[in-house]
Amino acid sequence: MEHNLEQFVVEIQELLRLDDRDALQETLDFMRVQDIAWVLMELGGEDLPTVFNRLPPGRKADVFGYLDPDYQMRLLDTTPRADARFLLSEMDTDDLTALLQSLGEEQLREYLRLLPFRAIRRALKQLNYPENSVGRVMSSDVVAVEPDWSMKRALAFIRRNADEHSNNVIFVVDAERRLLAAVPIRHFLRGRAEDPVASLLEESPPVSVSVLDDPIEAARRIQHYDLETLPVVGEDRVLLGVVTVDDVVDLLEAESTEDFHKMGSVGNLNLSLQSASPFLLYRKRVGWLLVLVAFNAMGGYVISRYEEAIEALVALVFFLPLIIASGGNAGAQSSTLMVRAIATGEVTARDWLKLWGKEIGVSVSLGVTMGMAVSLIGLWRGGFELALLVAIAMTLIVAAASVVGMLLPIILTRFKLDPATASVPLVTSLADIFGILIYFALAVAIFNITITGT
Amino acid sequence: MEHNLEQFVVEIQELLRLDDRDALQETLDFMRVQDIAWVLMELGGEDLPTVFNRLPPGRKADVFGYLDPDYQMRLLDTTPRADARFLLSEMDTDDLTALLQSLGEEQLREYLRLLPFRAIRRALKQLNYPENSVGRVMSSDVVAVEPDWSMKRALAFIRRNADEHSNNVIFVVDAERRLLAAVPIRHFLRGRAEDPVASLLEESPPVSVSVLDDPIEAARRIQHYDLETLPVVGEDRVLLGVVTVDDVVDLLEAESTEDFHKMGSVGNLNLSLQSASPFLLYRKRVGWLLVLVAFNAMGGYVISRYEEAIEALVALVFFLPLIIASGGNAGAQSSTLMVRAIATGEVTARDWLKLWGKEIGVSVSLGVTMGMAVSLIGLWRGGFELALLVAIAMTLIVAAASVVGMLLPIILTRFKLDPATASVPLVTSLADIFGILIYFALAVAIFNITITGT
Repeated sequence: MEHNLEQFVVEIQELLRLDDRDALQETLDFMRVQDIAWVLMELGGEDLPTVFNRLPPGRKADVFGYLDPDYQMRLLDTTPRADARFLLSEMDTDDLTALLQSLGEEQLREYLRLLPFRAIRRALKQLNYPENSVGRVMSSDVVAVEPDWSMKRALAFIRRNADEHSNNVIFVVDAERRLLAAVPIRHFLRGRAEDPVASLLEESPPVSVSVLDDPIEAARRIQHYDLETLPVVGEDRVLLGVVTVDDVVDLLEAESTEDFHKMGSVGNLNLSLQSASPFLLYRKRVGWLLVLVAFNAMGGYVISRYEEAIEALVALVFFLPLIIASGGNAGAQSSTLMVRAIATGEVTARDWLKLWGKEIGVSVSLGVTMGMAVSLIGLWRGGFELALLVAIAMTLIVAAASVVGMLLPIILTRFKLDPATASVPLVTSLADIFGILIYFALAVAIFNITITGT
Repeated sequence: MEHNLEQFVVEIQELLRLDDRDALQETLDFMRVQDIAWVLMELGGEDLPTVFNRLPPGRKADVFGYLDPDYQMRLLDTTPRADARFLLSEMDTDDLTALLQSLGEEQLREYLRLLPFRAIRRALKQLNYPENSVGRVMSSDVVAVEPDWSMKRALAFIRRNADEHSNNVIFVVDAERRLLAAVPIRHFLRGRAEDPVASLLEESPPVSVSVLDDPIEAARRIQHYDLETLPVVGEDRVLLGVVTVDDVVDLLEAESTEDFHKMGSVGNLNLSLQSASPFLLYRKRVGWLLVLVAFNAMGGYVISRYEEAIEALVALVFFLPLIIASGGNAGAQSSTLMVRAIATGEVTARDWLKLWGKEIGVSVSLGVTMGMAVSLIGLWRGGFELALLVAIAMTLIVAAASVVGMLLPIILTRFKLDPATASVPLVTSLADIFGILIYFALAVAIFNITITGT
C-alpha cells in the first residue's frame, strides 16, 4: 500500500511541475481522503497548500481531519478566514482538541474566534482534562438512550442522532446519565418494537475507563476485552464520551515506539523522526550518551588496575573486545526479551521466579557454547593457557550478563520505574565493566601474574 | 487492570488450596470471560482444568474462545468427548482455524471427528489458504445483502442473520457475490423503508484486502483508513470474509514484538516468553551470538596489529572501552530511530536524503560534545597529547557510528531485507571494529609510534 502511495507522491509532484491542472484534478478525484492526507504530508512545503486548495470543498474538511496537527496549522495559516472557519467547525471534537492543544496562546485565541460556540465549549471542556488523560483523546460524540424507552423509540432516536461522527455502539444511561450498558446497534434490531431497552441490558456492568486514566489504560482494556468502543465515565459513572479502537491502534503504536527508542537509549521524542528538529534529536540522544560515558570510563579504570597484567602479556588485550562484547550481546538479548514481555503484559513481576530458573539454564548453555567457540581461537592465537582463560571467562561473562539483562528490567519494575530504562546500551555497558573484571581476575590467576597495585 | 487480574490469580489459588468451592464459584461469577481466560492461562498446570470445570456450561464456551491454542489443547485433552464437541462447535471459525493449525496430524483427525460438518468445511477451507495469509486469520461470518433489495428487506435479513459472531458492518454484493460496498449497520436505519440498498452505495469501491495478502497488510490498511472491518476478497473481488480491528491490534503487537526482538538480535520466537522452552530460547539466541563473535574477533585482530603501540603506551588501552562503547551507543541510537520509523511507515526509502543531511548535523554535534567530555578525562589521566587523541577519536567515532547506524537499515531495505536486522548488537560490533581502527591509527600518528608490522 505504501508503495502505491509513494507513486502518487511522485505523480503529483510531476503534475505540479507540468502545471497540468486537469490531470491533477483527475488524480485527486480518484484518491481516498486518507491517501490524500498522507500524500499531502509527504509533499509538505509549498505543495501542501497548492494541492489542498485544488480539492473540492466537500473533501477539504475530510482530508483536513486526517492531517497531523502541525500540517493542519500550516494550512490554516495560508487559508482565508471563512474557509478556516469551515474546516475547523467540521472537525471531530477529539481532532480539534489535539489541534488546539498544540497551539501557542495567541494562535489559540485567534482560532477560538473562528469556531462556532458549541465547538468551542466542547473543545475547552476536553482541554480542561489533564494532559495525558483519557479526557484529552476521547470523542464526546455519543448516542445514549434510556432503559425504559421502547425499542421503537430508541431506534427512532438513534436514526435522528447517529451521524458520521458516531459509532456502532449505543449507550444506555439512567436519568442522571450514569452508564448502564453499551449495546451494539445491531442488538436493537433484534428485539420487538414494544420491548423496553432494559431488555438488552446484561447482568454485569459494561467495561469502562475513567476520564482521568492514562490513555494507554484505555488501549489495554480495549485490547484485553476485544471491544470496539470503550465508554469513558467521570465521577459516579456518568457517561462523558467514548474511546474507539482506531484511536487505540495509534496509541499502542506510539507506546511501542517510545519503548523501542528507550531500548536504544533515545529519550522520548513525542514527534516523528521527520518532524523532529536536529536540535531536538541532539537533546534526546546526548543525555544517555554522556551517562554511559561514566559507565564506560569505569571499564577503563578497571583496565588501568591491571596494567601490569597487560604489560606481562599483551596478547590479553586481543581477546578483550571479543569477550566483553559477547557479554554485552547476551545481556542485550535477555533484556530485550524481558522488556518486551513486560510491555505487552505477558510477563508480570510475579512471574520472575519461573523465568529466572529458565534463564539460568539458557544462559549457562549459551555461555558454554560461546566459551567453546572462542577457546578454539584462543588455542590458535596463544596456546593452551590462553584458550583455557578465554573459554572460562567467556562462559562466566555470557551467563552473568544474560542473568543481569533479565533481572534489571524486573528490578526496575519493582521500583515502579520503566523497565525499558534497561536499554541495550546500558546493559552492554554494565556487562563491559564486570566482563573486564572477570577477564583480568581470571588472567592473573591462570598466568600467575603479580599485581602490585598502584 | 493487570494489577487487579493478578490479585484474582492469588485469590483463586488460595480458594483452591482451601477447597472453598462456594467462594470460588462466587468469584468466578463476578468475573468477565476475558479475565477468566487470562487468569486460567496464568494458573496453568492442574489448576487450569479444575477451575475451568467449575464454570457454568454457558460461560465455558465463551472463556474457551479467549484461550491461546496451547491452553485450549490442554483442556480438550482432559475434557469428556461430548463437552469437547460442544466447545469446538461454539468457536468462531478464525479461532477454530488457529487451534486446528497448531495440532499434529493424529490430533487433527480426532478433533475433526468431533466437529459438526459445517464447521469442518469452513475450517478446512481456511486451512487451505497459505500460512501467513489473510485467509488464515479472517472470519467468514459476514452478512451480505444485495443492492436491489429494499431497506426493509435488508433490515429484516440483518435481523435474522446478524449474531454474536458478526460485526457492525453489512456488505453489499452483486448476484455473483462480488463486493460492492461495506456499510455500517446504522446507515441502514437512516434510509426510508422502500429505498433500495443501492442508495447507500458510495462512488469509490470499498477498501479491501486479498485473501492471499500478508495479514500485516490488512492491519496496515485498517490502521491507515481508520476502518473497523476490512472485507477480504478473492479472485474477481468475490467477498470471502472479514478482518476486524481487534484482530489487527494483536497482529500489530506481534509485529512490533518481532521487530523489538530483532533489534536485540533475538530470532523470531513466534511464542510467548513464558511458553517458549529453554531449548527454543537457546536456539533463537545462539545464532546471532556466534555470528557476532566473528565481528568481535575482527576487532581483536585489529588490536593485535597495533601491539607495538600498546607496548609503547599501555595507557592507550584504558580509553579503548570508553571510545568504542560510545561509538556503539551512538550507532545504536540512530539505527533504533531509523528501524522504528521504517516499521511504522513514517520513513520510506525515498526520504533517506532528507534524513541523511539532518543525521550528519546531529552526529557531528554529538561527536563534538562527547569528544569534549572525554578530553577532560584524557587530560586528567594522561596529559595534553592523550587528551587530544581521545577528543579527536571520540568525535570521529561517534559521528561515523551514528551515520552507519542510520544508513544500514536503509541499505537493508533497499535490498528487500528486514531493516531490523541492523540490530543494536550488530551496529555496536561494527562500530567496535572501525572504532579500534580509528583510535589506534590516530594514536600512532599523534604519538609518532613506529609500527613495523608482524
